[in-house]
Amino acid sequence: MAIAVVGSLGLDTIETPAGRVEEVLGGSAAYFSLAAKHFVSVALVAVVGTDFPDGARSALEHPELDLSGLEVQEGKTFRWEGVYSRDMNTRETRRTELNVFERFRPKLNDRLRASTNVFLANIDPVLQREVLDQLRHPRLVLCDTMNYWIHGKRPELLEIMKRVRILLINEEEARELTGEPLTHRAARAILELGPEAVVIKQGEHGAFLQRRDLYFTCPAVPIESVIDPTGAGDTFAGGFFGALARMGRVTDRTLRAAIVYGCVMASFTVEDFGVDGLLRAERPEILRRADAVMEMTRFALDDTARLVR
Amino acid sequence: MAIAVVGSLGLDTIETPAGRVEEVLGGSAAYFSLAAKHFVSVALVAVVGTDFPDGARSALEHPELDLSGLEVQEGKTFRWEGVYSRDMNTRETRRTELNVFERFRPKLNDRLRASTNVFLANIDPVLQREVLDQLRHPRLVLCDTMNYWIHGKRPELLEIMKRVRILLINEEEARELTGEPLTHRAARAILELGPEAVVIKQGEHGAFLQRRDLYFTCPAVPIESVIDPTGAGDTFAGGFFGALARMGRVTDRTLRAAIVYGCVMASFTVEDFGVDGLLRAERPEILRRADAVMEMTRFALDDTARLVR
Repeated sequence: MAIAVVGSLGLDTIETPAGRVEEVLGGSAAYFSLAAKHFVSVALVAVVGTDFPDGARSALEHPELDLSGLEVQEGKTFRWEGVYSRDMNTRETRRTELNVFERFRPKLNDRLRASTNVFLANIDPVLQREVLDQLRHPRLVLCDTMNYWIHGKRPELLEIMKRVRILLINEEEARELTGEPLTHRAARAILELGPEAVVIKQGEHGAFLQRRDLYFTCPAVPIESVIDPTGAGDTFAGGFFGALARMGRVTDRTLRAAIVYGCVMASFTVEDFGVDGLLRAERPEILRRADAVMEMTRFALDDTARLVR
Repeated sequence: MAIAVVGSLGLDTIETPAGRVEEVLGGSAAYFSLAAKHFVSVALVAVVGTDFPDGARSALEHPELDLSGLEVQEGKTFRWEGVYSRDMNTRETRRTELNVFERFRPKLNDRLRASTNVFLANIDPVLQREVLDQLRHPRLVLCDTMNYWIHGKRPELLEIMKRVRILLINEEEARELTGEPLTHRAARAILELGPEAVVIKQGEHGAFLQRRDLYFTCPAVPIESVIDPTGAGDTFAGGFFGALARMGRVTDRTLRAAIVYGCVMASFTVEDFGVDGLLRAERPEILRRADAVMEMTRFALDDTARLVR
């Protein structure tokens, strides 16, 4: 039930209204695996440069994380710099240096080719296809994407859609992908493209999942101070896929619970810069926040039905 | 357990991506009372001009609606014209003609002064205070407001806050009122201003309620085609207060159920122009949508806790 994740690792410089950090561990594969490891083992497939700091690497060293697919290439590690608006709902990219990530062609070793659970993080759909082509028995493939690929590599992305079971995507990106202004209609339109289910990430408004007749919504866990939203979506994916892989079956029931754990894990990430909040997540607090989501959403209508005229 | 509502009645001209209607029945008191009447009797306190059309008046003629507080003044009825953006998340006001509403000074007749349940819809806080001063035994007073009063009559609005039990307010307005960029912190800050509870309306993302330790979220009911969002907030207020007044007690349990009915009633309004969708709401479909909210939000964590490491 382990998961293989193919994505980016990088050094992020982040400025939010709460402060600024320079060259901290980031990238979709980092957030995903640090969240998913609370549920299952995770194998990372990613590339870094020879300048990747020991401190960043040691944050990923954990009994549940398999780093055998982590390539170190001559050159510099991927770098990204972004600045968030006051309400943190929008951000501006100041600098993107692909460096070794520019030549990244994921090669799965023999053990990783046998992976049945695979997360294709937000990378070029051409690379996502190359990964799929290397898998011997893909069973549960989830994928993420973004505006850049929706506009720049639409045909390739649509091909990928036919080969993934669950797509995770932002609300705005779901609308752009489908041209549907109503998000829940965009979700249903995505199911027409291939995936069995789609998860729409809504930031501070939580997330919802659509699968056939199932429409399940989950609020974000309220956080006292949001410090840095970077990586919240990838963390959500890690909590969601981790819980789902651990439960071992894809049913309406397991999908509901997995969404809750996605929202729970994302709440740790936004509490501090980079992966610092996520690194502090521990079992009792994870369970406490899952219970909090239950308290935030439960209600009874037993004796209210007769109230309506 | 009847409710008295003090608000506007008007003739709205509305343009949305779905079409345009001219001079249809609108105003906060119309939406509120047509929603709340499914739960309790409602007395309207409002003013119209001598040009108020018979068709608009007859939409309000219903055994559960008391129109004895509906003043007809010499002159023209309040008119508003608005145009919605393509995604309907923003709108521009093209024209506001206050007409007889400009001189509106709500006068409660003797029976209405005995009202214990009162909704102060979004009107000048000075008028809201005048209404409160006329009440003999206010017990459950709810109120709504908007940016215009937050900026233009802040001290008067803050006085009202001390005299209402539950404030209903939009997400963005809650942030403006309190200066808190995180909505759930804005909600808690509002409780410091006086109300025992606050309901934050989030449009297509539903609503949440904060009261002491209770934080309850409810998604919007997904609608196949959103035709016209005008009045959704006032309709929410009608469903919420109607259900709450009918249950007769303000507890965490009744508040949760009332929020669900608020979201359910609002979903009827957005389905058609003006009050047309709301006028078609009937008991079986109201109950079906409340059940749908349950299906959209319920989950079980029984055997997932042991999944977390």
